Amino acid sequence: MILSLLYNKNPYVTAIEEVTGEKVQVCPTKEEALRYLPETELIITIGGGNLSVPIDEEMLNAAPLLKWVFSISAGVEKLPLEELKTRGILTTNTSGVHAVTIAEYVMGGLLAMSHHYDRYIPLKKEKKWGNLISEEDMEGKTLLVIGAGHIGSEIGRKAKAFDIKVLGLKRKVCSLEGFDEVYRMDRLREVLPQADYVVMAAPLTAETYHLMGAEEFALMKNEAVFVNIARGDTVNEQDLIEALTEKKIKGALLDVFHEEPLPTESPLWELDNVLITPHSSAISKNVINKVIKMFEENYIKYKNGEKLINELY
Amino acid sequence: MILSLLYNKNPYVTAIEEVTGEKVQVCPTKEEALRYLPETELIITIGGGNLSVPIDEEMLNAAPLLKWVFSISAGVEKLPLEELKTRGILTTNTSGVHAVTIAEYVMGGLLAMSHHYDRYIPLKKEKKWGNLISEEDMEGKTLLVIGAGHIGSEIGRKAKAFDIKVLGLKRKVCSLEGFDEVYRMDRLREVLPQADYVVMAAPLTAETYHLMGAEEFALMKNEAVFVNIARGDTVNEQDLIEALTEKKIKGALLDVFHEEPLPTESPLWELDNVLITPHSSAISKNVINKVIKMFEENYIKYKNGEKLINELY
Repeated sequence: MILSLLYNKNPYVTAIEEVTGEKVQVCPTKEEALRYLPETELIITIGGGNLSVPIDEEMLNAAPLLKWVFSISAGVEKLPLEELKTRGILTTNTSGVHAVTIAEYVMGGLLAMSHHYDRYIPLKKEKKWGNLISEEDMEGKTLLVIGAGHIGSEIGRKAKAFDIKVLGLKRKVCSLEGFDEVYRMDRLREVLPQADYVVMAAPLTAETYHLMGAEEFALMKNEAVFVNIARGDTVNEQDLIEALTEKKIKGALLDVFHEEPLPTESPLWELDNVLITPHSSAISKNVINKVIKMFEENYIKYKNGEKLINELY
Repeated sequence: MILSLLYNKNPYVTAIEEVTGEKVQVCPTKEEALRYLPETELIITIGGGNLSVPIDEEMLNAAPLLKWVFSISAGVEKLPLEELKTRGILTTNTSGVHAVTIAEYVMGGLLAMSHHYDRYIPLKKEKKWGNLISEEDMEGKTLLVIGAGHIGSEIGRKAKAFDIKVLGLKRKVCSLEGFDEVYRMDRLREVLPQADYVVMAAPLTAETYHLMGAEEFALMKNEAVFVNIARGDTVNEQDLIEALTEKKIKGALLDVFHEEPLPTESPLWELDNVLITPHSSAISKNVINKVIKMFEENYIKYKNGEKLINELY
């Protein structure tokens, strides 16, 4: 049996039913899941964020036939990876499929801020011709990607077309298309002062939890913009709010937050020069198609007993 | 004497005074200009749009010493070019300096629409976490540049980083970096049906007046977005409004209009999926610096009797 732990209806269930020729049992609560887990061989879930029932030990104990957990997301911080590994359950994510969409989102957001769409868009409702504001070209600036993996390196590649200097931080240093320099992650503080745009693209792990805090924001230029398309907790959100309030940095483009949806009380809503999107940067028709294609390829490999794409261990 | 015909205070006068070591006489009306023209050797103006006193025959008759007209803009449709040529007065524009800024503006606007910043930005004032809307990636789409000159070809070059097909129309066909195909202007109607993004970047001339009208919009895809960063009258604005209202095209990103500021009565203000900016796409700190640098280079050439950059005939 194939079981989906996603809370909401989504285009994946139908597509997976088509690919596999099997019915997908949709279980938006743990209780329902526990009913079907004894017969479940494959779980479809979202390994990051809070859009699906989290898998816990009780659930794994109830699923003796479970062979494969397929995460629709790239982030898998909510999956019990050690436990899955110990039990020999294959776990795959969709690392790679979101890169283009997120890179477009980041470039669009940064250019929208530089060229003041954030000011002109609200004026339209009032039918107001805005005052000319001198734009800040991206050309000649420096962009730093923290975590130049699939997503981060695609951001750097696209950014390069805007004739800027592109710097990357990565666990293992290698050369990357479009990047002028790639440094090891532990050189973050050394590199931060150079950047006009700092893009957080590292997965949330014990090492990246609150990677950006008061000291790091203090090292950024006053004119720099901070972007987070990774996970809210890679950043100390209180420190980010302080850095923005005290104008230690110029602005932020934020798609992820410590708590999502972002609570109405959050001061981020009231800060000028902050763009907020509802964890939407990786959602596009292209991404959905790429996820389905990756599932299809992996399903064939799985049936043939071959190594899967994006096995996590 | 150096005379400025610009209506408003701007950073150019001071810079030109620094470069030349001469005082620039600022004349925001024709009457004032007529007082100083008898001694004027060099006029600083904006050859397009409506931001400076238009030069007419009476003014030229009053300026027997006039040797050079320097237009801060690239567009010079308001200059009496034939008359200036006949009188042997050098005329230069700043073609080239706006390309990067406008290309950033276009890419930012198109990406902002694709990734729904136009919907999320107004939600922020209401502290509302928006519903996820599936974004339309630019990847895999086709962009057509009408008028692939300095500006148009820079748009194509940047667009290419987004892995799209880039088509160009040009008076004289040549190969251009980033473009998959470049066609002659008269093949517009043949190429229009292919494009997901149609960017008007041609200067306003007798040939390009109302180049896009009802028939052309009808040839575009229903899902296509139209962009105008050239001049309002390259497009039949009524026909554009109809095409948008009747959903013959999906949206528009408009920086220029038949009448500017765009009148409050214009239906464009009320149309969804239209972004409006106040003829701001070419205004940036970089552009100002590049214009001043071009003036400086030309001033030295002028003093040495050398050929100027961007002589118009």
